[in-house]
Amino acid sequence: MPEFLELLPPQEALNMFWEAFSPLPSGEECDAAQALGRVTVSPVIAPYPLPSFPRSTVDGYAVRATDTYGASDTLPAYLQVIGEVPMGGASDFSLTSGTCALIHTGGMLPEGADAVVMVEYTQNVRPEETEILRAAAIGENVLKVGEDVAEGQEVIPAGVRLRPAEIGGLMALGITNLLVARKPQVGIISSGDEVQPPEAEIGPGQVRDVNSYSLSALVQGAGGVPRRYGIVPDRIEALRSTAAEAVKDNDLVVITAGSSASARDLTAQVINELGSPGVLVHGVNVKPGKPTILAVCDHKPMIGLPGNPVSALVIASLFVVPVIERLQGLRHQRPKPSLTARLNLNLASQAGREDWIAVRLDRGPDGYIAEPVFGKSNLIFTLARADGLVRIPPDANGLNAGETVEVTLL
Amino acid sequence: MPEFLELLPPQEALNMFWEAFSPLPSGEECDAAQALGRVTVSPVIAPYPLPSFPRSTVDGYAVRATDTYGASDTLPAYLQVIGEVPMGGASDFSLTSGTCALIHTGGMLPEGADAVVMVEYTQNVRPEETEILRAAAIGENVLKVGEDVAEGQEVIPAGVRLRPAEIGGLMALGITNLLVARKPQVGIISSGDEVQPPEAEIGPGQVRDVNSYSLSALVQGAGGVPRRYGIVPDRIEALRSTAAEAVKDNDLVVITAGSSASARDLTAQVINELGSPGVLVHGVNVKPGKPTILAVCDHKPMIGLPGNPVSALVIASLFVVPVIERLQGLRHQRPKPSLTARLNLNLASQAGREDWIAVRLDRGPDGYIAEPVFGKSNLIFTLARADGLVRIPPDANGLNAGETVEVTLL
Repeated sequence: MPEFLELLPPQEALNMFWEAFSPLPSGEECDAAQALGRVTVSPVIAPYPLPSFPRSTVDGYAVRATDTYGASDTLPAYLQVIGEVPMGGASDFSLTSGTCALIHTGGMLPEGADAVVMVEYTQNVRPEETEILRAAAIGENVLKVGEDVAEGQEVIPAGVRLRPAEIGGLMALGITNLLVARKPQVGIISSGDEVQPPEAEIGPGQVRDVNSYSLSALVQGAGGVPRRYGIVPDRIEALRSTAAEAVKDNDLVVITAGSSASARDLTAQVINELGSPGVLVHGVNVKPGKPTILAVCDHKPMIGLPGNPVSALVIASLFVVPVIERLQGLRHQRPKPSLTARLNLNLASQAGREDWIAVRLDRGPDGYIAEPVFGKSNLIFTLARADGLVRIPPDANGLNAGETVEVTLL
Repeated sequence: MPEFLELLPPQEALNMFWEAFSPLPSGEECDAAQALGRVTVSPVIAPYPLPSFPRSTVDGYAVRATDTYGASDTLPAYLQVIGEVPMGGASDFSLTSGTCALIHTGGMLPEGADAVVMVEYTQNVRPEETEILRAAAIGENVLKVGEDVAEGQEVIPAGVRLRPAEIGGLMALGITNLLVARKPQVGIISSGDEVQPPEAEIGPGQVRDVNSYSLSALVQGAGGVPRRYGIVPDRIEALRSTAAEAVKDNDLVVITAGSSASARDLTAQVINELGSPGVLVHGVNVKPGKPTILAVCDHKPMIGLPGNPVSALVIASLFVVPVIERLQGLRHQRPKPSLTARLNLNLASQAGREDWIAVRLDRGPDGYIAEPVFGKSNLIFTLARADGLVRIPPDANGLNAGETVEVTLL
């Protein structure tokens, strides 16, 4: 497919790409204590109810509710204190009519008790007797067995990214390891005759490799495992052998092209040789990032990114991050927070094309002010100086100063 | 300081705590490729300018601008093509009047050239001659030396958390390692006679340790290194010796109290013995989390959290996360995105107290709808079922159904 014949809008391109590969088939066992950010592959079912015994939610006296009916400040119920509920064990006594027991928050109700009266509504007269100043309803201040979670209940669905709360919940149920999606291995290839490793002394006309590292960091942040394949010169044999090796060993391969048009065409050619169906999208209607390639080679997704470091990172956040999520089988997308700001100057854009502009954010009196970070350079420090990106939708001719815009944080 | 004598609002409590300890004094060398999320301890200064040579931003012809003045479709300028600029090297020719050279995006301008004409505005007539159809101004389509970054310029200030863009920028400058703040070591102690390790078979009245693990995950997500000290029974000697060990080996210690009032008092007592000034805040005007303790013992911050897993996690996100950021010396706070939703029912609250309510979010026709996740249980799955927390400010008596609320994602 020749470059730029048909420019798809980014979302349409992503949708088409989406259908052409599947989540990673197998999961792996993971220590639940290390599972932050991992994605469940099957629903987690509660093996026991929670709580597993009737628990007091307050400090006070465990009672039989009927013994407290009608009790008030002026007409207390007098109950015999027959013991103190131990923390972490069952009581060795049970309540009969007219008796109560001291209980602490989290304590297990003794047999015969069906409610707890808060200590604030009691008064100790003698060591073995307490005055109950408030009537308690059955179940008051008590957690019933299974009130949080019933035995057999699905507590975490499949396809959920685990947060601290889920990790705590797993522990509460004694689930100390579980099946999670593998972290997708992402092969990253930089290409370009002018590109040198960051540690190299560079000569005239040479630049250091930015993309391998900025993309590795992005992949890592998205839950993938980056694997760098170094810098490949703009020769088809070199790119072909490195790309073939990367496809074999990874779940996703990302290639940043050399910056010239011919170097970019090389990427598409190599990808098409690697497997079918090959290149699905060549050219996306977005700036920066028009020469983006989306491909699938024998079920493995591949993404060709522009060589310019800013374009590469912007496009990777649009395409690489969702692909990593899909490979992990993420199904439950949490709502995404957003940030709005007011533009401080006019931004022109070509109608029909989606534009992404780097902006700095400053706190103004009525919220954030977005100031575009320009520089025809379009070099990496444009992004390092920015807080986020503003999208100019394809149906706009630009945005006006004063308009409220949504900012995607970098 | 006895519990609850004086209840500070959370923000005031945090401010007071803030002043009582300092960021970690020393940084550590870190491989820049592994530095995602780390915080700079000193400004990063550019050792070279970027770009380090004049670069073309397009594919086209390097020219002397004066040779193109007046050129148009109907009256092209004819220039002699004297060569092609190699990628990754300097040209072995220089332009004289009437000559030009083929150049690719990112190529180094040959000596004598001061502008580039895009290939779209040229036409090849003979191999050694090209027609220039558009005049170029001096500097057009050229990045000047230092246009992105000047030599000696501060490119990343101290106290910045590194994102993929900064990592790329470091590489562009050949900075392959740098000084970053140590990851704060956070000692986590669970206490309570009823608490058992997650892998244990539990008996009547016993529950599994949730807090050690949910808090470890929270600490990890915030950039700290959690170290778990297991579960300590509600005896002062046991808590004292474990807490003393944890304070010695960590930068921050977090203790979750046993659930009874007496167990909570134990924590304050032990902290006061460990060093001065000891407990600074005992009791915060927030629900859940009233019994929170903020303390500093011989320059080390310590936080006492309620034993209830929901309270512990909510309060940790209010207090533990900012403390980890401060220990790392984070100075440049990026703007925080937010999420607003409409409440779907009335929420009562006590005036004068800040309340945090767990909510689920559903997409409605006009944005998100926040549905409180109740359960008197207040057990961990309340949070696992929720997407975020809604704050009821202390000056409100509650919130009404239909009100727009800000949701802090969990």
